[in-house]
Amino acid sequence: MVIVMAPEATQDDVDAIVELVGTAGGEAFVSRGVSRTIIGLVGDIEQFSSLNLGGMRGVADVMRVSTPYKLVSRDNHPERSTVWVGGVPIGPGYMTLIAGPCAVETPEQTLKAARMAKAAGASLLRGGAFKPRTSPYAFQGLGEQGLQILAEVRAETGLPVVTEVVDAHDVELVASYADMLQVGTRNAQNFALLQAVGAAGKPVLLKRGMSSTIEEWLMAAEYIAQRGNLDIVLCERGIRTFEKATRNTLDVSAVPVAQRLSHLPVVIDPSHSGGRRDLVLPLTRAAIAAGADGVIVDVHPNPEQALVDGPQALVEEDVAELARVVREFPPLLGRTLTPALEAAERAGEAAESAPVA
Amino acid sequence: MVIVMAPEATQDDVDAIVELVGTAGGEAFVSRGVSRTIIGLVGDIEQFSSLNLGGMRGVADVMRVSTPYKLVSRDNHPERSTVWVGGVPIGPGYMTLIAGPCAVETPEQTLKAARMAKAAGASLLRGGAFKPRTSPYAFQGLGEQGLQILAEVRAETGLPVVTEVVDAHDVELVASYADMLQVGTRNAQNFALLQAVGAAGKPVLLKRGMSSTIEEWLMAAEYIAQRGNLDIVLCERGIRTFEKATRNTLDVSAVPVAQRLSHLPVVIDPSHSGGRRDLVLPLTRAAIAAGADGVIVDVHPNPEQALVDGPQALVEEDVAELARVVREFPPLLGRTLTPALEAAERAGEAAESAPVA
Amino acid sequence: MVIVMAPEATQDDVDAIVELVGTAGGEAFVSRGVSRTIIGLVGDIEQFSSLNLGGMRGVADVMRVSTPYKLVSRDNHPERSTVWVGGVPIGPGYMTLIAGPCAVETPEQTLKAARMAKAAGASLLRGGAFKPRTSPYAFQGLGEQGLQILAEVRAETGLPVVTEVVDAHDVELVASYADMLQVGTRNAQNFALLQAVGAAGKPVLLKRGMSSTIEEWLMAAEYIAQRGNLDIVLCERGIRTFEKATRNTLDVSAVPVAQRLSHLPVVIDPSHSGGRRDLVLPLTRAAIAAGADGVIVDVHPNPEQALVDGPQALVEEDVAELARVVREFPPLLGRTLTPALEAAERAGEAAESAPVA
Amino acid sequence: MVIVMAPEATQDDVDAIVELVGTAGGEAFVSRGVSRTIIGLVGDIEQFSSLNLGGMRGVADVMRVSTPYKLVSRDNHPERSTVWVGGVPIGPGYMTLIAGPCAVETPEQTLKAARMAKAAGASLLRGGAFKPRTSPYAFQGLGEQGLQILAEVRAETGLPVVTEVVDAHDVELVASYADMLQVGTRNAQNFALLQAVGAAGKPVLLKRGMSSTIEEWLMAAEYIAQRGNLDIVLCERGIRTFEKATRNTLDVSAVPVAQRLSHLPVVIDPSHSGGRRDLVLPLTRAAIAAGADGVIVDVHPNPEQALVDGPQALVEEDVAELARVVREFPPLLGRTLTPALEAAERAGEAAESAPVA
Repeated sequence: MVIVMAPEATQDDVDAIVELVGTAGGEAFVSRGVSRTIIGLVGDIEQFSSLNLGGMRGVADVMRVSTPYKLVSRDNHPERSTVWVGGVPIGPGYMTLIAGPCAVETPEQTLKAARMAKAAGASLLRGGAFKPRTSPYAFQGLGEQGLQILAEVRAETGLPVVTEVVDAHDVELVASYADMLQVGTRNAQNFALLQAVGAAGKPVLLKRGMSSTIEEWLMAAEYIAQRGNLDIVLCERGIRTFEKATRNTLDVSAVPVAQRLSHLPVVIDPSHSGGRRDLVLPLTRAAIAAGADGVIVDVHPNPEQALVDGPQALVEEDVAELARVVREFPPLLGRTLTPALEAAERAGEAAESAPVA
Repeated sequence: MVIVMAPEATQDDVDAIVELVGTAGGEAFVSRGVSRTIIGLVGDIEQFSSLNLGGMRGVADVMRVSTPYKLVSRDNHPERSTVWVGGVPIGPGYMTLIAGPCAVETPEQTLKAARMAKAAGASLLRGGAFKPRTSPYAFQGLGEQGLQILAEVRAETGLPVVTEVVDAHDVELVASYADMLQVGTRNAQNFALLQAVGAAGKPVLLKRGMSSTIEEWLMAAEYIAQRGNLDIVLCERGIRTFEKATRNTLDVSAVPVAQRLSHLPVVIDPSHSGGRRDLVLPLTRAAIAAGADGVIVDVHPNPEQALVDGPQALVEEDVAELARVVREFPPLLGRTLTPALEAAERAGEAAESAPVA
Repeated sequence: MVIVMAPEATQDDVDAIVELVGTAGGEAFVSRGVSRTIIGLVGDIEQFSSLNLGGMRGVADVMRVSTPYKLVSRDNHPERSTVWVGGVPIGPGYMTLIAGPCAVETPEQTLKAARMAKAAGASLLRGGAFKPRTSPYAFQGLGEQGLQILAEVRAETGLPVVTEVVDAHDVELVASYADMLQVGTRNAQNFALLQAVGAAGKPVLLKRGMSSTIEEWLMAAEYIAQRGNLDIVLCERGIRTFEKATRNTLDVSAVPVAQRLSHLPVVIDPSHSGGRRDLVLPLTRAAIAAGADGVIVDVHPNPEQALVDGPQALVEEDVAELARVVREFPPLLGRTLTPALEAAERAGEAAESAPVA
Repeated sequence: MVIVMAPEATQDDVDAIVELVGTAGGEAFVSRGVSRTIIGLVGDIEQFSSLNLGGMRGVADVMRVSTPYKLVSRDNHPERSTVWVGGVPIGPGYMTLIAGPCAVETPEQTLKAARMAKAAGASLLRGGAFKPRTSPYAFQGLGEQGLQILAEVRAETGLPVVTEVVDAHDVELVASYADMLQVGTRNAQNFALLQAVGAAGKPVLLKRGMSSTIEEWLMAAEYIAQRGNLDIVLCERGIRTFEKATRNTLDVSAVPVAQRLSHLPVVIDPSHSGGRRDLVLPLTRAAIAAGADGVIVDVHPNPEQALVDGPQALVEEDVAELARVVREFPPLLGRTLTPALEAAERAGEAAESAPVA
């Protein structure tokens, strides 16, 4: 931690800080410049934070040097992590495709979408039963009925299920069906929810808040980690900017930046980033090329009838090209497409995550 | 709703849309331009939304014309509303000052801050017992103990209490103590929470999400309204931009814009907008001058020891100037400062909102 | 300047920096923390910048402590400045209204607009002869003919003229007519233009770039100042954000922030900030209340026929309220409305700035 | 063009618009909805723009339907264009690497950097002789001396030269040396400069403004095109957002979006986007994978001594990996790396672009 004094700060102001830091068990190093004095602090940063140094007389600025997150930081865990979801890995060496419908609507639609996903090379199935919608008048998802459909489709296809939870008090219910819990962009700072998924004993797909800095995103992950759950996959899904041609602006740089700051896997959602079907394949290629550990894509057998986000879903005729992209690009980065489990292999896992009747 | 067809759209594409709209009980008006065809839709917009017109062949763009919010819209309710909080009005003709500590820390600190607030002209007391914090290692508030302190200070000073709730399942508890429930910026799209406060029977102070458009902010209010609660006060508290000199950028234009789109009162939080004590008074003046129905300000008897947001709290020596500002500016806009209730007047109200033991 | 070393930096890396700083005539103070080492630099910051310390091995971050601007900084010039434009002051104690048409179209329109401006309380006339337009197919201004119209209207009304220059090589021409040169938001980092107006010997109204930080805005002012011209007035005119309800987002906090960092006067343009006529008066009030030294407003006798930005111009029926606002609000801030010069008083000045035929 | 009437608009208001549009030679189609009336306009959009329809009584909104750019639009020119620079193509089927030092400092540094560029697979040399710098105290480039160095290095290596011009009145000078003129991000709306490069008879590399929408970027290209120059290459170089971990946020979606809206080639600058050396290779891969027609990269033989942007330049040890990336990725997209011309082939071209002594 570094304290920058104001030009008008007095010797007494400086002395007061040095003394306070000493009382808190730290050491202060004073450097006097031509117009300003700077004080470097060595010791326990958490303790310094509680001193409210920024409020002391003569202080112009307090700069934090160490990162504010610990458990998810790569500083303390240099090797990148692999997260396992129902037997399927996400992490270095792999490129994992997660695909499925934005929202679960019917058993038929979900099964068809899951088969499209598998044909494209997906090893995990995505699908929303609880949907956070900007308008209270829009379709909010099927709820538990949707979770049951997902469980049936998992049994049929062998694909473990990633699904969103939007309220801390639904976590237990959703976790009883899902293989991985998704926290959406609008809940990126819903700390009650983050803590609840941290305690749920299932891996978590944590979307970046649409206006979260990378640091705030990692702080959200730290909330989950602090409850004892380090099986977290970070998901970049576009940030809010002034540009209007795309729904959000995919921050593809977030992949290498987050991978350098944190040991957690990082995936990209090209569907919600652009909000346009014609951008999904170019952004999928860009994501893989940037080094993403995975990609999560909306597919729909009949997007004209989709209740949610139809305009951005890939359709049947896109499947072959998606399959080509996820197979051909990863080897150039020393990765291979994560294979889907056979339904048989999957059986044991699936049984475990089925709700106890 | 207006549909813009792509240049390459065929007559069949247009016919398909006209037919579909007819099936849904609407009417379509086709206008052919030199390079494009435009279709205007008349009828029930919600029903059209479910048609997924944007996904049909030949469609380049779908433009929504009517506003997506109804209950909070001024279109259907031209007169601006007044919201009453424990006997204190917020709305046209008034300028209501809400003040208090960012976080409740001790009974003494809270009482002192409440007295500063009253001296400055406040008629409502703010104070956080549940604090949403970016870091899991930061002080998270005193919880119910903080609510008890607020209730005691209310009894002492007569100031009704505004306090934040951060989880849908705390709403009942917080509502049992508070006169007004605050929903914070990080929960601006926590729809479970919005619905819960909508059902709680207490007025709500709804902060704008730091990356919410004004339309999304009004949609969040619509979530609350849809549960039968129209006692909503909108609070602008700064949005996220590229500028780094201030914590957020106060969008002062949001006051006249939101007042024109919605009948709800609009207040400004100059403390969290700037994140700097030296900006609180200038931004308070700007807020009142822009036509805000109120201002919500952090005050602290001893900000060097504040556990949360100390650097932005006004201190004892600022009280006189704040008092001058909130008295002298409103009359230039045809408003008067809302007077504080006497503790005696307040008695009946306070009893009602005390928790049933 | 403070250097933060990476956790893996070696003693040799640190020694190399200390030595390099010494060679450059500075001193380095090394502080070792638990996980990182920090080096404070004392000496000539410009010289350190040229060392490219950020590129040295082991360096994680280089933080600048002093401000990068000197001549416009308040550090070295604590008293706030007053800039005189054709005999009219802009600065502390005053609130100066600048008004007129966005673009000069005809002598009649310009004269009518100038009379509206004067009736509202303006002491300076704005009007564009050279217009920077996003589309090459839009009206680009009347050029020198527009400047002549402005000079005639100045002779008629006594109002000194503020007008934009868009190319370095027009500066001499524009300066031969104008009392104050305006640099627009799209040219906020057109350094050739900034240097040219710095050498022109006329006061400058420097608009903030729509995506400039306050620091970058002050750096642009420093470019002008460095050519020997300190008669600079800073003008906040809205920044680019995600919000779409207004053309730009007025950053009203920029007034107190810039006034604290720089000694230069700061004015606000409420017309271009919002891009909507109904926002001009509320934003004018907010600007004055925030402490702006002036306001620059579009007025038009017949905005339905305006060739540029008609929808944001105030009209005849707004003049009385604008006049009330600029008279009644400044006294609450210890300011008075700058009075217009009489045409007679103005005569000498006008003669000087007329082009040499 | 579509006009949305306000709810309170009268029949007279609608009639007035229909009549006005008719006078201007267009046709108006009126559609009446439950709460609003919509008027579709067919005819010459430029003429409608001059009517200032947004200012008419009863009008709530005017939506433009056709694109405001014509010459660079893909609507009127469906086939994507190839731009030739000194005999080197940029366009579909190719992936062209442009590389070199950010700033020309010495003949040796420039030649070494050009050799690194060529070793990496570059067919064009970048290098700045005129540098737009935020600070007036920073190195501003060598000017014409820098251009001479570039010409010498071109003669030595056979690489045609791309270099920036920052002032309209330097265009002739720079064009006498350069094979391609670069317009930088800070000049994206310097219309005098755009028009001057449009008239210079050399291909142009047009960087996107750091806060330009894609539409504004294409409008800037239209300014150049309107002067008769369609040899324009668009360059995405990162936009300004709230994220602070990278200097700018690379908008990789801009590649497919701009390629769909315009026939012009689109390249990416991964060096200035991230501002960090460790991001250049991941962003280069992402750019190619997204379908960019080229990439422009900073390389420097000794970045610790670079006078400008050293921390983002690739170094000797990165060359092999850059060479691998630009060779291996393009074939997956049906492209091949554009080969460098032999110095001999280049001779004729180089002679032509040499300044007439």
